[in-house]
Amino acid sequence: MAKTEGLRERRRRQTHREIHETALRLAGERGFAKVTVEEISAEAGVSTRTFFNYFPSKEAAVIAMPPMPPDEDVAVFAAAGPAAPSDVLLDLIDLLLRDMARHPPRRDALHGMFALSQDHPAVLAAMLAGFETFQRQLAATVAARTGEQPQDEMPRLIASLTMAAIRTSLENFTSGNDDNPVPYVERAVTTLRALLGR
Amino acid sequence: MAKTEGLRERRRRQTHREIHETALRLAGERGFAKVTVEEISAEAGVSTRTFFNYFPSKEAAVIAMPPMPPDEDVAVFAAAGPAAPSDVLLDLIDLLLRDMARHPPRRDALHGMFALSQDHPAVLAAMLAGFETFQRQLAATVAARTGEQPQDEMPRLIASLTMAAIRTSLENFTSGNDDNPVPYVERAVTTLRALLGR
Repeated sequence: MAKTEGLRERRRRQTHREIHETALRLAGERGFAKVTVEEISAEAGVSTRTFFNYFPSKEAAVIAMPPMPPDEDVAVFAAAGPAAPSDVLLDLIDLLLRDMARHPPRRDALHGMFALSQDHPAVLAAMLAGFETFQRQLAATVAARTGEQPQDEMPRLIASLTMAAIRTSLENFTSGNDDNPVPYVERAVTTLRALLGR
Repeated sequence: MAKTEGLRERRRRQTHREIHETALRLAGERGFAKVTVEEISAEAGVSTRTFFNYFPSKEAAVIAMPPMPPDEDVAVFAAAGPAAPSDVLLDLIDLLLRDMARHPPRRDALHGMFALSQDHPAVLAAMLAGFETFQRQLAATVAARTGEQPQDEMPRLIASLTMAAIRTSLENFTSGNDDNPVPYVERAVTTLRALLGR
């Protein structure tokens, strides 16, 4: 059962990434304004119907949002139960970090996304909306562990700090020259520990 | 000199608020899609040229972003110099809190903004872009105090946590029944202290 889930999950990640990378490549080759959903779908070898199962728009398709870690890892995190808030925060970042080490984002893809978001307000809007959604998922994940509600203050603060650390790391990663994002996140965690006095 | 500055600043805040509240009121009365910049300007008694000096679009006009505190208060914050990161964070929130106590946002206006942002993706985009800009200003304010760069990790993490605390407070404020936002921010600060272990 877990194995089937793992296969489906891998295929989902792969299709997601192929559409995303195709969208970024075509935007780079032809200019973002000129590329259509039809062209991206054809080039990625999927139907437009499949495209829209993964992304609501071409703006969204050039956005690489980290997918949530696999359900079983999230379940382990949740099962650890209530703890000091700063421990929950560091555990959550560790959960994302391990997933990122297994599926590292490509530096040129992230670089393309940040560059497009600076030139196209609609891409910036899609990126910020993506961060927002991801952050809500993180708050829900924290709440599932601590027994709070996702809209309570502590889950939201923990989620926002986690998101800020990840986002800062990824921006630094794209302007650096190391193809491995993990050390950038680890550096952000060090900064975070200094902020938390740990 | 400081007095002149104070007058100009007060007039700026007042015009900003009048345009914003008119935009929200007309959106409520006529429906957001039907209201134009011309109508908002006429009703607020300003030229469209003045409107665009304050807001880039009608989406932006329904967004109530807290203005940065007065320059002299920001200067006092900066002059305090480097300190433990959690002290800088708590000082920054205190700076915003004192400004909010002097110019409390109206609960119905904030409520209108959050409601519109849920129904209109363009308003959500403007709101998130506003948070983003405000957060960058906060990071620059922190960096001016600590001698870091605004894009360094610590200023960005402090700014994002401050923003999250303010935003959570304001959302709770709009769904509560107290017309004073200050206690909501104070409650978020208590949560934040628990996260920081202070």
